[in-house]
Amino acid sequence: MLDYQTIRDRTLEICAGLETEDFVVQPHEFISPPKWHLGHATWFFETMCLQKFFQTTPYNPTFPFIFNSYYEALGEHVPQGRRGVLSRPTVREVQVYRQHVDRRMREAASIIKDRGKETQARWAETVELGLHHEQQHQELLFMDIKHILSHQRELPSLPGAPLEGKEAPTSNQKIDIRGGVHSIGCRDDEGFCYDNERARHEVYLRDYSICANLVTNREFHEFIDDGGYKRPEFWLADGWEWVKASQIRAPLYWTHDAKIYTLQGEVTISPNAPVCHVSYFEADAFARWKKCRLPSEAEWEVAFRGQPRQDLWQWTASAYLPYPGFQPFAEAAQEYNGKFMSGQMVLRGGCLATPGSHYRSTYRNFFYPSMRWMFSGIRLCAQ
Amino acid sequence: MLDYQTIRDRTLEICAGLETEDFVVQPHEFISPPKWHLGHATWFFETMCLQKFFQTTPYNPTFPFIFNSYYEALGEHVPQGRRGVLSRPTVREVQVYRQHVDRRMREAASIIKDRGKETQARWAETVELGLHHEQQHQELLFMDIKHILSHQRELPSLPGAPLEGKEAPTSNQKIDIRGGVHSIGCRDDEGFCYDNERARHEVYLRDYSICANLVTNREFHEFIDDGGYKRPEFWLADGWEWVKASQIRAPLYWTHDAKIYTLQGEVTISPNAPVCHVSYFEADAFARWKKCRLPSEAEWEVAFRGQPRQDLWQWTASAYLPYPGFQPFAEAAQEYNGKFMSGQMVLRGGCLATPGSHYRSTYRNFFYPSMRWMFSGIRLCAQ
Amino acid sequence: MLDYQTIRDRTLEICAGLETEDFVVQPHEFISPPKWHLGHATWFFETMCLQKFFQTTPYNPTFPFIFNSYYEALGEHVPQGRRGVLSRPTVREVQVYRQHVDRRMREAASIIKDRGKETQARWAETVELGLHHEQQHQELLFMDIKHILSHQRELPSLPGAPLEGKEAPTSNQKIDIRGGVHSIGCRDDEGFCYDNERARHEVYLRDYSICANLVTNREFHEFIDDGGYKRPEFWLADGWEWVKASQIRAPLYWTHDAKIYTLQGEVTISPNAPVCHVSYFEADAFARWKKCRLPSEAEWEVAFRGQPRQDLWQWTASAYLPYPGFQPFAEAAQEYNGKFMSGQMVLRGGCLATPGSHYRSTYRNFFYPSMRWMFSGIRLCAQ
Amino acid sequence: MLDYQTIRDRTLEICAGLETEDFVVQPHEFISPPKWHLGHATWFFETMCLQKFFQTTPYNPTFPFIFNSYYEALGEHVPQGRRGVLSRPTVREVQVYRQHVDRRMREAASIIKDRGKETQARWAETVELGLHHEQQHQELLFMDIKHILSHQRELPSLPGAPLEGKEAPTSNQKIDIRGGVHSIGCRDDEGFCYDNERARHEVYLRDYSICANLVTNREFHEFIDDGGYKRPEFWLADGWEWVKASQIRAPLYWTHDAKIYTLQGEVTISPNAPVCHVSYFEADAFARWKKCRLPSEAEWEVAFRGQPRQDLWQWTASAYLPYPGFQPFAEAAQEYNGKFMSGQMVLRGGCLATPGSHYRSTYRNFFYPSMRWMFSGIRLCAQ
Repeated sequence: MLDYQTIRDRTLEICAGLETEDFVVQPHEFISPPKWHLGHATWFFETMCLQKFFQTTPYNPTFPFIFNSYYEALGEHVPQGRRGVLSRPTVREVQVYRQHVDRRMREAASIIKDRGKETQARWAETVELGLHHEQQHQELLFMDIKHILSHQRELPSLPGAPLEGKEAPTSNQKIDIRGGVHSIGCRDDEGFCYDNERARHEVYLRDYSICANLVTNREFHEFIDDGGYKRPEFWLADGWEWVKASQIRAPLYWTHDAKIYTLQGEVTISPNAPVCHVSYFEADAFARWKKCRLPSEAEWEVAFRGQPRQDLWQWTASAYLPYPGFQPFAEAAQEYNGKFMSGQMVLRGGCLATPGSHYRSTYRNFFYPSMRWMFSGIRLCAQ
Repeated sequence: MLDYQTIRDRTLEICAGLETEDFVVQPHEFISPPKWHLGHATWFFETMCLQKFFQTTPYNPTFPFIFNSYYEALGEHVPQGRRGVLSRPTVREVQVYRQHVDRRMREAASIIKDRGKETQARWAETVELGLHHEQQHQELLFMDIKHILSHQRELPSLPGAPLEGKEAPTSNQKIDIRGGVHSIGCRDDEGFCYDNERARHEVYLRDYSICANLVTNREFHEFIDDGGYKRPEFWLADGWEWVKASQIRAPLYWTHDAKIYTLQGEVTISPNAPVCHVSYFEADAFARWKKCRLPSEAEWEVAFRGQPRQDLWQWTASAYLPYPGFQPFAEAAQEYNGKFMSGQMVLRGGCLATPGSHYRSTYRNFFYPSMRWMFSGIRLCAQ
Repeated sequence: MLDYQTIRDRTLEICAGLETEDFVVQPHEFISPPKWHLGHATWFFETMCLQKFFQTTPYNPTFPFIFNSYYEALGEHVPQGRRGVLSRPTVREVQVYRQHVDRRMREAASIIKDRGKETQARWAETVELGLHHEQQHQELLFMDIKHILSHQRELPSLPGAPLEGKEAPTSNQKIDIRGGVHSIGCRDDEGFCYDNERARHEVYLRDYSICANLVTNREFHEFIDDGGYKRPEFWLADGWEWVKASQIRAPLYWTHDAKIYTLQGEVTISPNAPVCHVSYFEADAFARWKKCRLPSEAEWEVAFRGQPRQDLWQWTASAYLPYPGFQPFAEAAQEYNGKFMSGQMVLRGGCLATPGSHYRSTYRNFFYPSMRWMFSGIRLCAQ
Repeated sequence: MLDYQTIRDRTLEICAGLETEDFVVQPHEFISPPKWHLGHATWFFETMCLQKFFQTTPYNPTFPFIFNSYYEALGEHVPQGRRGVLSRPTVREVQVYRQHVDRRMREAASIIKDRGKETQARWAETVELGLHHEQQHQELLFMDIKHILSHQRELPSLPGAPLEGKEAPTSNQKIDIRGGVHSIGCRDDEGFCYDNERARHEVYLRDYSICANLVTNREFHEFIDDGGYKRPEFWLADGWEWVKASQIRAPLYWTHDAKIYTLQGEVTISPNAPVCHVSYFEADAFARWKKCRLPSEAEWEVAFRGQPRQDLWQWTASAYLPYPGFQPFAEAAQEYNGKFMSGQMVLRGGCLATPGSHYRSTYRNFFYPSMRWMFSGIRLCAQ
């Protein structure tokens, strides 16, 4: 069971090494200013817990507009691409807001103890969702902070960030798995999971052979040296358009002369570390070049069920779609996952920035196929 | 077995009612001028058959650039959105080009008879692919001509076009199908199919219940009257952005006052005819409003295996992805289907504009989720 | 005095060498399909003469929407960039429309003879405006046809078009003009002119020295060879942005290897012919490189007052703004010129495509500074 | 003579009421973060004075890239629209940079005293340009800070800002001025001015009559109430496109219910105060509605020669073009003014945010015709 204050404090700890100015900027529409993350995760508790169970009025009447992300049922909000225009509230004011809501949440917890069993259960569930939501934003903070700092000419590091680019095993070992009817997804008795991980259901798989390790920087460099980014035959049509329009020639954060930007600053690329910050298009093109393929999410889950968080998220060949029998969360939280089920691809495995207590091996992460600012790598299957 | 000249002549027959000017214009990037279709389908035979088997040089040195659609391996080509800039070659010149290639194809066919078995087989396969390709463009011609004519202030009809908007059965009857391991896709011994329909493979399905009939204009009108286009709770996030940005308020070609533009001109909407020209986003939103869901393509195929072409294509809930064991066509034709396997959704069932001899119940059509100028309708499953 | 039918017939003569398909396409928003010009000039007579003097109803109810260019007071119209979407009315139908209006104009002319003096005068004025308008579109036709044909891979010529690229005198001779108070603009007693050429007014000029000849292709080539398109110091800031964004490296229609596209097809560049199809930005940059400057329109007019049409329009350093005492034409024609008086620069001198009877030495042509599909050249002043 | 440290300190004083976060954001491409202004004006001294006269190396090697605005001759720089992406250097670091350069400038001033007369003169001139440049950015700071704060939901005020919206005389009095040859521009013996104010030269003016006072909010409200923003007959074609595309319905910062955002926060509109924050398009449309016209810059200067700064800049009918005999500043400063002489219109008169010692009645301000975030108002001439 997640501890409220421990998780809330961890969020601030992640940002401890930032300058005030770093909290504010938004280099691209899909990046949120760290300040916004701090406020949004707090607004989630205020709205879903305090307001719903105690009918409180907003701490500040402008905050629901500013800190609502995409919940249409909860009213209008700042367009995502305009979050970086907001200098107010200040970082300090957002921290005070956090303290206020944390205090109220503690008071609420003690009041709820005197309510009925059902209310207690619903409260506990909502708080748990809020804490997982906060943890999800902890990972987003690492992603967004990295992106923001990478835009600064001095390429600063983030003190206390997880170490990137660790060497990894590089054998070509493969795991052979027998086909047939397998089950994937989260069982009802397995505790907390997101709505998109259910219902647990049967899938039919063929025999397959999945790599034990991820693709390394060395291997990806061979792809580049072989003209990987210049030969359309490896690419999906949309991917090829993306390569040409965005002039893509290497994974994100590869700077020059075998250097790479990490949360530890600019460092030499480690050939034996897994390649990171690739898009689905790049992962798919690499696989085709290598005469392999990406695993489906079912193949991935059957192979790694029950294993802990890995170093990098891994693109699967599966589109992000509802499982059979999918039921979205109730009420406002119904918009949490379900409405994003078009145009995106599933990633599996967790990454170095994912809080360990947040991860499950049934976890379905998802991004558009051109995105690559998350910590994403490549695991292959034999064709 | 498809007859070469019959199919080639049919293409011209479809365009017989057009004015010369109608052959040239391109109202949107995704619409091709009819003249371009006539040239492209011919270039396909010239390139894949005459050039490959007989090393002929191009009939006109500018045509490969003009009439190549998207085959990167076959050289540069006019950007898709600039096809409507080309007044030359003229319609008449394209018709002469068609006659030239048809003549050469007949000569080639008689020469091939004296070649080895294997060459004969490869030739026959390639011609068959070219004819299916031509038929695919026959359907595209109906789609594109309709779109072009809909932009003319007088709303002209297309003489000889298939009749749209026929009344259909409107019962709520459902077909119940038992779950378990089913097979879908085209068997190797079933004759011609596209590469994307193979390999035939097992899927696991739950019990499901699929509607015998399509959603009607009357039902879709109820959705609109209930605020369907104004209530975000029914929509995928990308769909809701599309509705707002494109100010969508009805299916494509709905004009005003219960009127609709068809290939027969502007007519009154028939309440009992199936709703047509909806996007995936609209189909999905309608299903959610109706507390139903769209079928997966496997569910669709198991239910309608072996049945003939239907009146409208039907959106499925399945992303367009490779089947297990997918092998693209050989050589230049490898770009035919495989490289489009991202970001699109599968439609099943054929439509009134699909040549009957072109259709198979394993046929996988695919479009981006916002597209709706094809003849697309909605079939539901119980949730 | 301009003869109605002579001028109307000349318009058709210009288009006589086109294929039907050439009449329809629109490669860029600022290009109009020739068919549209034919219809628009006719609509001008129908609306300004027949409808206004005889209250006729439109020949075809869709034509006012299709053929109105930009007259807001005359109702809605097709957006300029969508003219190329209209395959209907056909070229033939537009020709019939022209014949119909011409017949009605003849009938009207004989009826008007029995009306009062004032009505006769107003009629004559309106017809005269319509004919100058038609002549203006004759020049636009040459410009737009050239642009359309330049987009065809075979680079066709236009039979009967004026000969481009004639050698010209290349001396460095300058005309010295004494400063002081001069008058420019059209006098009230000089017969027809556009509203923007009045009121005739005084301007104070310094002594200046203006080149007798235009800048040649040879000189412009020296500018290019000296890095003209790569050195920001020669360029206005907006011009430099334009060069970078549009990757400009030579005048429009320069193809490769000292070739140039003309209305006579692709030909070798003649070094002694005046450079053509340059933008204001290019003319201004060239002048700065040459340590010269462009003349103001007053300097131009004082130097060339009363002289006939020249080979190329010449960019002046003057913004297109109202003369002191400017009064727009009455009624609907008030939108003819006045509302375009922002953001554009004046060109003077006429060109090979300007009908001789249309031109006056007080004529003010105007285009945005990045435009260059008109027949535009460079005349310099000493600094 | 301007005092270096007084002017440098004033810049910081303007920003004293800002939060750190306010220094960083960039709501639109044409707005610069206050932090950037602080650094840029300092870079100007470092580059034009210290580096040029003493060959110093940059204080920080990344600063020339970050703080160069648009001087192509001085190397590459951050694209204008990406200034708001830079969280580094921090506000504090920029302040330290300012102190460093100020110290060096003092040291340099005392060293220069021992140099030759000519060097001393060139130094003094360059410092003077730098100080006027700094003052120009003081006005830009008020403009940009106002724009930034207007995007904050709480609509904060800026402590210490000049008072906006003061009531003004509202008589219809006009000043009649006799035409003939007048002189405008700055004489060579009048001390510092920008290069664009020279050469002083003769212009010929007709008799004219110019309003003594500016157009008020009351008058502008009448324009709105008379359908001013809905009637194309008042608008230039480009202006009408702008009104439609940007959905303009009132001057900038008009909020609702007769409220207006000012540097003092949101206040009630004062009917007798001059209307502020209008574009050229709006000023021109208002003039046409009022059956008046805007003055040319020559008419303006002849009328108000020698008078001090006014409350609001006033749009003139003159395009921003070089005066006869214009010579840009020498060396790097040649890019200061001259390269912006296309597409912009001249404003005259100074405004409440213009430092008094910065202003001259020959001062030529310039903006694109759709811009309106400067303090711009309307002065009319009788037609």
